[in-house]
Amino acid sequence: MPLRFAEPATDAYHFPLTIRHLLDGVVTRSGEQQILYRDESSYSYRAFVQRLSRLADMLASAGATPGMTVAVMDWDSHRYLEAYFAIPMMGAVLQTVNVRLPPPQIAYTLQHARAEILLVHRDFFPIVEAILPALPDVKAVIAILDGADADLPPWAIGEYETLSAAASPDYPFEDFDENAVATTFYTTGTTGNPKGVCFTHRQLVLHTLAAAGPFGASRAAPCLGVGDVYMPLTPMFHVHAWGVPYVATMLGLKQVYPGRYEPAMICRLRAEHQVTYSHCVPTILEMVLQAARETGADLSGWRMTIGGSALSKALCAAARNVGMDVGAGYGMSETAPMVLMAARRDPDLAGDEDATIHTLTASGVPLSLVEVRIVDDAMRDLPHDGETRGELVIRTPWLTPCYTGDRAASETLWRGGWLHTQDIATIDPQGQVRIRDRLKDVIKTGGEWIDSIQLEELVATADGIAEASVVAVPDTKWGERPLAVVVPKPGAVPTLATLNQPVDAAIAEGAITRYARLERFEIVDQLPRTSVGKIDKKQLRARFGEAPPELCRQAG
Amino acid sequence: MPLRFAEPATDAYHFPLTIRHLLDGVVTRSGEQQILYRDESSYSYRAFVQRLSRLADMLASAGATPGMTVAVMDWDSHRYLEAYFAIPMMGAVLQTVNVRLPPPQIAYTLQHARAEILLVHRDFFPIVEAILPALPDVKAVIAILDGADADLPPWAIGEYETLSAAASPDYPFEDFDENAVATTFYTTGTTGNPKGVCFTHRQLVLHTLAAAGPFGASRAAPCLGVGDVYMPLTPMFHVHAWGVPYVATMLGLKQVYPGRYEPAMICRLRAEHQVTYSHCVPTILEMVLQAARETGADLSGWRMTIGGSALSKALCAAARNVGMDVGAGYGMSETAPMVLMAARRDPDLAGDEDATIHTLTASGVPLSLVEVRIVDDAMRDLPHDGETRGELVIRTPWLTPCYTGDRAASETLWRGGWLHTQDIATIDPQGQVRIRDRLKDVIKTGGEWIDSIQLEELVATADGIAEASVVAVPDTKWGERPLAVVVPKPGAVPTLATLNQPVDAAIAEGAITRYARLERFEIVDQLPRTSVGKIDKKQLRARFGEAPPELCRQAG
Repeated sequence: MPLRFAEPATDAYHFPLTIRHLLDGVVTRSGEQQILYRDESSYSYRAFVQRLSRLADMLASAGATPGMTVAVMDWDSHRYLEAYFAIPMMGAVLQTVNVRLPPPQIAYTLQHARAEILLVHRDFFPIVEAILPALPDVKAVIAILDGADADLPPWAIGEYETLSAAASPDYPFEDFDENAVATTFYTTGTTGNPKGVCFTHRQLVLHTLAAAGPFGASRAAPCLGVGDVYMPLTPMFHVHAWGVPYVATMLGLKQVYPGRYEPAMICRLRAEHQVTYSHCVPTILEMVLQAARETGADLSGWRMTIGGSALSKALCAAARNVGMDVGAGYGMSETAPMVLMAARRDPDLAGDEDATIHTLTASGVPLSLVEVRIVDDAMRDLPHDGETRGELVIRTPWLTPCYTGDRAASETLWRGGWLHTQDIATIDPQGQVRIRDRLKDVIKTGGEWIDSIQLEELVATADGIAEASVVAVPDTKWGERPLAVVVPKPGAVPTLATLNQPVDAAIAEGAITRYARLERFEIVDQLPRTSVGKIDKKQLRARFGEAPPELCRQAG
Repeated sequence: MPLRFAEPATDAYHFPLTIRHLLDGVVTRSGEQQILYRDESSYSYRAFVQRLSRLADMLASAGATPGMTVAVMDWDSHRYLEAYFAIPMMGAVLQTVNVRLPPPQIAYTLQHARAEILLVHRDFFPIVEAILPALPDVKAVIAILDGADADLPPWAIGEYETLSAAASPDYPFEDFDENAVATTFYTTGTTGNPKGVCFTHRQLVLHTLAAAGPFGASRAAPCLGVGDVYMPLTPMFHVHAWGVPYVATMLGLKQVYPGRYEPAMICRLRAEHQVTYSHCVPTILEMVLQAARETGADLSGWRMTIGGSALSKALCAAARNVGMDVGAGYGMSETAPMVLMAARRDPDLAGDEDATIHTLTASGVPLSLVEVRIVDDAMRDLPHDGETRGELVIRTPWLTPCYTGDRAASETLWRGGWLHTQDIATIDPQGQVRIRDRLKDVIKTGGEWIDSIQLEELVATADGIAEASVVAVPDTKWGERPLAVVVPKPGAVPTLATLNQPVDAAIAEGAITRYARLERFEIVDQLPRTSVGKIDKKQLRARFGEAPPELCRQAG
């Protein structure tokens, strides 16, 4: 295309979209604003920027170079925030390590990412000590004692705060190619080895800008804006804590980092620092609500974005009942992660409480620069009628370009030029996307799709049920049939009849297909979960799905 | 630098920051939202996107190709919005023509920008007819009859709506290099020929994203957000109407385009469509306030960003008195234009009314990705103490890379790698930038700088003064001395004593240097203004500044 290009002045500044530039103007605007870590520390943005220099300088002294992977194993802290910025800003790659993985998998991800320097909190010293022999690439470990009066392990080259104090506050950060990789981490698949995703500087800057818009863009019900106090409740190793630390820092907000998640500490920090915005998975929201019930803590006015798993209507209502304002968000490890956020346009919230909760628990509407489609197997577009289901595929500037070193999986992820979420969704005429199922969790029975998420929500409301999951099991006649796996409440004895009560009611209302009626269920003490707290359906299928019918509990 | 780069999947989508992508997700989110033009038309975003195809298709039929300049001469309309998108989206360059320039200068800008296709509203037919012979490059003119039952001029190839209706709604917009030029227009200098600036797709997308953040980022006092109704009151030929049409479209807001600015129409549209957000120069705000005084129109709840010239405290207070929420913004033709917006952080608006007005009339705090400095002649940084004055220099991703075809001016603009605004500013410890003067308007007297803007604000409050300007005139003893040029109120006879009354009061309070006391003034019927309504100080200096003292009116 014979496009027109400008002839820049010799000294015209070419502004690269590197993470360093998220700080532009921040010290001018918010130099004295505070960043806190528990009761341990509080410092200004002016000091924060100096500490970024110190961290880069101490890493350089430890041998860090541009292009090298520097891995962090820490709780949510001001140090982690420093690593979010300083490591990419020096041209190195930040690896956020999922500390909940089994140690052999942690070792696998560190080795696979070629991590050469580690920053490790003392709580993870035993893990690191165990896996270090399997990590020949690691040339330096910096220990984080986190204020404890403990000895430096013999394999550490120094302590974070000590090294920081001795380092230079004037590291010469430079501009470089915005397409350089800034971060990497590993998805917590339920099978095989974790898969590495990576994001470039450009991608994270665009993610930050796009996320800052809708966060504040709703006048009626803003999420995050100037004046807010931010505390993450999604681990910082988990998809950049959904990118919000970058947003909060760019906006110059007061930030509170809670360290290891302890309900009492979280409630106390929230009250003490008047935290107004957080984000977390449903399990953490449950935990916070429980802690407040026990301590009488006032949660009103606390706004949260809930993701990772579906936000149930019951949990949404429970949070709203104590004065919280919660709404769903949607994204994945592969998507940096923000893609959708619950709609907060005036009409969306103008209905009654049921309608509002229906909206707030949808996966949401696309953020700016996010194009979404629902497609069939041949990637043909399906109608946005709120009914037709298809795979959600997306394009935005912030999608992982590949799984590191896994060409086949990368090609599958990106087939046809769109990122395949493997989530089955509907889109309604107002643009609200609802995730109905995981592609691999879909139950196809007699040519009909059963919404496993909807079915398990129904089963969960049955008498005597604490938790429920539904998976497909092979069936010679129907192809697949649903199997409910339930955790009863103490003393309760669920039967197929009690489980089917809410299902039958939904069938009678036309809310779910009659093929959803259960013929089988299993009782377990607890549901298996992945390292990020999602129900591990793969394991359920392995345990119950493939077993011959005669070994399964048949009831009713 | 040996950075790390990813190995993208074969089909991984490389997302270019082109204007087309501002529409991603918009039809999904806001397909039925409306875009209006006066009482003439209203259509949905779904239809808008189809009309972009139709416009591109009709332009292609008229001979438009990528890289070609397509110029628009229209009032603020849905058609202009279509041109904002469709012309750059097809790879062509949109030239927004300042229709207030004298026809020879309009001809100069069209010829200089190599415009080959013109879209012209019937109100400008006489101008185009007069200058067409001087525009050998123009190969097609499309006439905009705007609903009038008028004949097509013989030099037009067709009429906008007729051609649009006949064109294809499926133009194959493609991805291309985000660094291609998207728009160009000419700065309205007060001397010599207008200078062309240009902006790339990447720059405008980043400007849009960054502007959308702070627009909505303040919970306490948001500017623009989902739920708002937007109506521009800055001409769309003027620096992309400050970029807000792009922001409003990306956010999927209801938009109202007012056509030619007529106070009664503006007030009626505002009331009828419940417009909540606009932006304009102080003169338009004055006009709206005046129209409302005459008609009794209710302006309460209307939020406005005021730029172009300083927002005076008196005007800010007058707007607030009728329930409007106004605040300053700062930018220039060279800056796309958004750089600063009045701070709306909680503490900024927590003081009394005087303090709030003081904040809202400051030029503002930097937007995200905006780095500002105040520097001395040697580009050394000056302290952010709210007192020390220096030239404001900036870096953001959306600054014109050059003045088209003017290498010398381009190099001056960008000397030292920072864009020189030629504005003298202070920055206070809270990051608020205040423009104190134009570099060329500064009055240096006896080694002291006098703030000409402050001095003319003082003189404007003197008895019997309707308007005032202050310029420097050469002085053998002091280097320069201030000269006040005033427009008296009807029947008033200002004297040096009456003019100096507010100046003396300010000197007594220590608010201004004693060197500001006037010894000379001039009376005029009206102040000369540039085509965008700014006081033309160059002309004042030429008329009064160079005259020998004995010819000047000496009073007192």
